[in-house]
Amino acid sequence: MSLIQKMRAIQEHKATTVCVGLDPDLSKMPAHLTTSMAPADAIVAFNQAIIASTAPFACAFKPNFAFYERYGSAGWEALEKTIELLPDDVITIADAKRGDIGNTGSFYAESIYSQLGFDTVTISPYMGMDAIEPFLAYPDKLAFVLGRTSNPGASHIQELVLDDQPIYEHVIRRIAGMSEKNRERIGLVVGATDQVALRQIRTLMPTTPFLIPGVGAQGGDPKTVIKAAYAGPGSVIINSSRGILYADTSTAFAEIAAFEAKKLRDTIQTAIDVNQA
Amino acid sequence: MSLIQKMRAIQEHKATTVCVGLDPDLSKMPAHLTTSMAPADAIVAFNQAIIASTAPFACAFKPNFAFYERYGSAGWEALEKTIELLPDDVITIADAKRGDIGNTGSFYAESIYSQLGFDTVTISPYMGMDAIEPFLAYPDKLAFVLGRTSNPGASHIQELVLDDQPIYEHVIRRIAGMSEKNRERIGLVVGATDQVALRQIRTLMPTTPFLIPGVGAQGGDPKTVIKAAYAGPGSVIINSSRGILYADTSTAFAEIAAFEAKKLRDTIQTAIDVNQA
Repeated sequence: MSLIQKMRAIQEHKATTVCVGLDPDLSKMPAHLTTSMAPADAIVAFNQAIIASTAPFACAFKPNFAFYERYGSAGWEALEKTIELLPDDVITIADAKRGDIGNTGSFYAESIYSQLGFDTVTISPYMGMDAIEPFLAYPDKLAFVLGRTSNPGASHIQELVLDDQPIYEHVIRRIAGMSEKNRERIGLVVGATDQVALRQIRTLMPTTPFLIPGVGAQGGDPKTVIKAAYAGPGSVIINSSRGILYADTSTAFAEIAAFEAKKLRDTIQTAIDVNQA
Repeated sequence: MSLIQKMRAIQEHKATTVCVGLDPDLSKMPAHLTTSMAPADAIVAFNQAIIASTAPFACAFKPNFAFYERYGSAGWEALEKTIELLPDDVITIADAKRGDIGNTGSFYAESIYSQLGFDTVTISPYMGMDAIEPFLAYPDKLAFVLGRTSNPGASHIQELVLDDQPIYEHVIRRIAGMSEKNRERIGLVVGATDQVALRQIRTLMPTTPFLIPGVGAQGGDPKTVIKAAYAGPGSVIINSSRGILYADTSTAFAEIAAFEAKKLRDTIQTAIDVNQA
């Protein structure tokens, strides 16, 4: 089964497009965890509770590598333990923004797909398609290429306009021109806040999965995202990190996180229903 | 002392611009190492021998993170042990190609600068200046931003021409426009094979340190690199990985590596002398 098929099946079965971003930040975690154990252990304990409580409402979990790497090899071990905690009925996304060429690119792909065992990874296209290709050698995996991010700095490269097309569109058209086999192993990261860009990129890539950060705390509205980008099960994964993880810092944090995940799931599913009506 | 000052002092004192790329690839290493120990241990043993033998001819060492991350937390531990083996009279470069915004970017900077203790890091500018800024908060560190790489895929984004300037030039001009304080914490990665681009980027950034990969095995000629980009001590760091590491696979591999490092050092120093004559 290709990863896209797996993602479609999970979203159909669980009726959710929500991705829970696993960004474990000790300064925001419940004190009863952070004061009683070492940072790497607190991260695993926190993730374990969050995963168990939110999994019913999530189609994917996305550990953000920076939050683990700041603790060195101990943090990387916490990442390895976190992956083992993830259930079978979710997609696992390595938010690592890797990107390099040749052997180096192949080893990053091996690290994330084979060694850690993630289903998907985020990668940066600045070095060109040779930085993407090493990630396409795996038939059952998928790489989310940074397309259009929604931070202010997106204007510095991505939104520069050349031949009436922003640079991100040049990148996306080049991906659209790849072989079908390759295209089935590629998704795009597209920020939630620019509805026009979302819609236009969906036109260019009618069925490609979009990983969409930026809802909730970052200002993106799930309803407008669905309207602009939804194209059936498997077409969008909408990430929320802080809004779910840190909604509460009491001993009930995991239940409150589940409540927030369910709320986001329901908001999005209602938007999908309205959209299809 | 700023990192640029430190780099200048090291290059003046040791009369070398050579960076040894620590890309430990078990399939290319001496068999007496790889058959007798676990991969992560073989990496550390290999690096230890290479570092000890080549350090007299090197101004910098550059571990390439993919080669470590493919072994997971054990690989990351090998990286931590490798850093401890590096002597004081070299610059340490984390070739990690990181790049993300906000907290995530700050945690990547913390991971590489504080946790691992590297002097410098390679970063990708695709997300814009907000992906660079987190790395500029450290007065005694320096971030090498990917400017112009020399792989074929560089044509897909970096070399697209907008307003008579390739995209990489837009990036570099934006960096050139930063405050002096920030500019002193920035270097550029510029590939060795395109002399015209090297020369033009040197014109835009007269004193910025360039990290230059692509000599030796990858086809760049040290003499033309010096002619195009040298601007005094601290202005260029010329990396060689395979050409030094895998020149020999016998038990004498470290001595042969030192011979190759010295040869490259001498070639470059002669080119510098000729250039200044």
